[in-house]
Amino acid sequence: MTLHTITWDDAAGTDGRGALRLLDQTRLPDHTEVLDVVTVDALVAAIERLAVRGAPALGVAGAMGVVVAMDEAEREGWDAARLDAEIDRVRLARPTAVNLAWGVDAVRPLVGAGRDAVLAAARQVAADDESANRELSRRAADWLLERTGRDRLRVLTHCNAGTLATSAWGTALGVVRELHARGALEIVYADETRPLLQGARLTAWELAREGIEHRVQVDGAAASTVLRGLVDCAVVGADRIAANGDVANKIGTLGVGLACREAGIPLLVAAPWSTVDLATPDGDAIEIEERSGDEVTGWQGTRTTPVDSPGYNPAFDVTPARFVAAVATERGLVEPAAGGTMGEVLG
Amino acid sequence: MTLHTITWDDAAGTDGRGALRLLDQTRLPDHTEVLDVVTVDALVAAIERLAVRGAPALGVAGAMGVVVAMDEAEREGWDAARLDAEIDRVRLARPTAVNLAWGVDAVRPLVGAGRDAVLAAARQVAADDESANRELSRRAADWLLERTGRDRLRVLTHCNAGTLATSAWGTALGVVRELHARGALEIVYADETRPLLQGARLTAWELAREGIEHRVQVDGAAASTVLRGLVDCAVVGADRIAANGDVANKIGTLGVGLACREAGIPLLVAAPWSTVDLATPDGDAIEIEERSGDEVTGWQGTRTTPVDSPGYNPAFDVTPARFVAAVATERGLVEPAAGGTMGEVLG
Repeated sequence: MTLHTITWDDAAGTDGRGALRLLDQTRLPDHTEVLDVVTVDALVAAIERLAVRGAPALGVAGAMGVVVAMDEAEREGWDAARLDAEIDRVRLARPTAVNLAWGVDAVRPLVGAGRDAVLAAARQVAADDESANRELSRRAADWLLERTGRDRLRVLTHCNAGTLATSAWGTALGVVRELHARGALEIVYADETRPLLQGARLTAWELAREGIEHRVQVDGAAASTVLRGLVDCAVVGADRIAANGDVANKIGTLGVGLACREAGIPLLVAAPWSTVDLATPDGDAIEIEERSGDEVTGWQGTRTTPVDSPGYNPAFDVTPARFVAAVATERGLVEPAAGGTMGEVLG
Repeated sequence: MTLHTITWDDAAGTDGRGALRLLDQTRLPDHTEVLDVVTVDALVAAIERLAVRGAPALGVAGAMGVVVAMDEAEREGWDAARLDAEIDRVRLARPTAVNLAWGVDAVRPLVGAGRDAVLAAARQVAADDESANRELSRRAADWLLERTGRDRLRVLTHCNAGTLATSAWGTALGVVRELHARGALEIVYADETRPLLQGARLTAWELAREGIEHRVQVDGAAASTVLRGLVDCAVVGADRIAANGDVANKIGTLGVGLACREAGIPLLVAAPWSTVDLATPDGDAIEIEERSGDEVTGWQGTRTTPVDSPGYNPAFDVTPARFVAAVATERGLVEPAAGGTMGEVLG
């Protein structure tokens, strides 16, 4: 069964227009539950609480979100200014994820051409995402096997850059799938990825579902796993890649990069070209989203700290280009640690 | 109020002899509950379920446990062989905790001199632990203020090396207390310390109780907090320190050390001299305990991963001496990253 994180379902909804259908990632791995979204409020809420997450999936959510807004405008009789404002709400629901704005901007010029044109474009964004993921996965697998000189790789990953983070196939887990399909994968060490446990809940769920050998470890174990020689490389996704190759990704990625550089093994960042932001010169220019401290101090309603202990919750960190051995995109592969910059992909 | 993790309370118990009073660490931070222990059975159970934990605290538990056994022997009419066997049960309640056996052995030769002599010796073990902690804390604070050249320090810590791990005052948190008492502490960033959350539960509890400004963060945030310049140093405890200055400590410490070295800020290890093992030449000779994967795949009784995803759970990591700016003990301070070795403390 092909898993789809986010699709437009023409048969859903109540007014014949269909609905944006999301797999609610906050309910995994215990429950496989879909959400049918037909209002901007519901979409913004789903994005904020991470029911849909992952840079490429957010790109699709942004594009299809324009359709949601147009359908709601039609139902509610919004004027053009109101529709514009509502589309902006979708666009800015999460600040660090460049793909969300990118997805909105990719289809917004078609608003004047009508919702069916926008929906067709949004579906193309999703289709392009899957083919991009498959292409960058092939490039990344080729590079990793050549660089490491090994036949079967032991891979560390952080967070979830899998099917669940994209429309299909995945980026970092797309690379894992590609290696697995080639018989070139030995094992995956998956960081659990606190505070929201995307590794323990989502990456483990994807790997277990496909019978890929893996172990889940606490985030604090990553440096030790790398420096003890238990893995040959680390492969992660990205939320934003600056022009110089600095990479914003889930909090904890920087520590993986430090350990890989120290151990002399490659950290490969797998991401579609839409994650590359050439207008951002380097990581210093990337705004880091700080989320509620309650995600740190509690778990499923149970507080783990004393009531008067505040949590500090930066959602992302920035891994400097010098720790990033390679960035694999569908357009080409760059080696930032060796001085490569993202612009060279464009020739 | 001075917090004592473990004391002998003459007023407790029912037979005029008093009782061993433990703060039950499994109940923190929600409940501050003391256990009055008057039987060997109760003491062994408390040690096994980690109601008392931390190497120095277990040393005191071992020493005072001999008094518990002698008082029970008096009440129950045990003969000398039975008393010996019961003391051995205390000694072996956690076979890997060397301090427990060390504490028993420190007072056992006095059994023939009577329980009051044993109790006095056990209280001396506790008093010596506290004074060692206070002395190493003063040395560490002096060194940190001089090295950083700052008046008020922002400190990152990992796990719990506080009062709760010792008889009183603490090691890493003893340094924090010393800085706070001097008006030289700005804030503490406490890593939550998965899988067992000693940072979120215990370190945060100690800091909140004393009104010390702090924030709890996920372990994956440590590298970013260090490299973004939010802290001036990191201070941690140790489970074992090899002759060359390599440090075994709670999993995640290595990542903190890597980040500190990269940022050019000091990682200081605060530990009593009893933690230094000159017979271990370096970290390669330290066996890393692997605990049950269930600690990783579960969260307070709820499974976080799919049922067929195994956890990988190394309890400790080894931070190489080159990342350890200083080791502060009550006997003296060594700078391993600058080439210092532990033996030089002995002159």
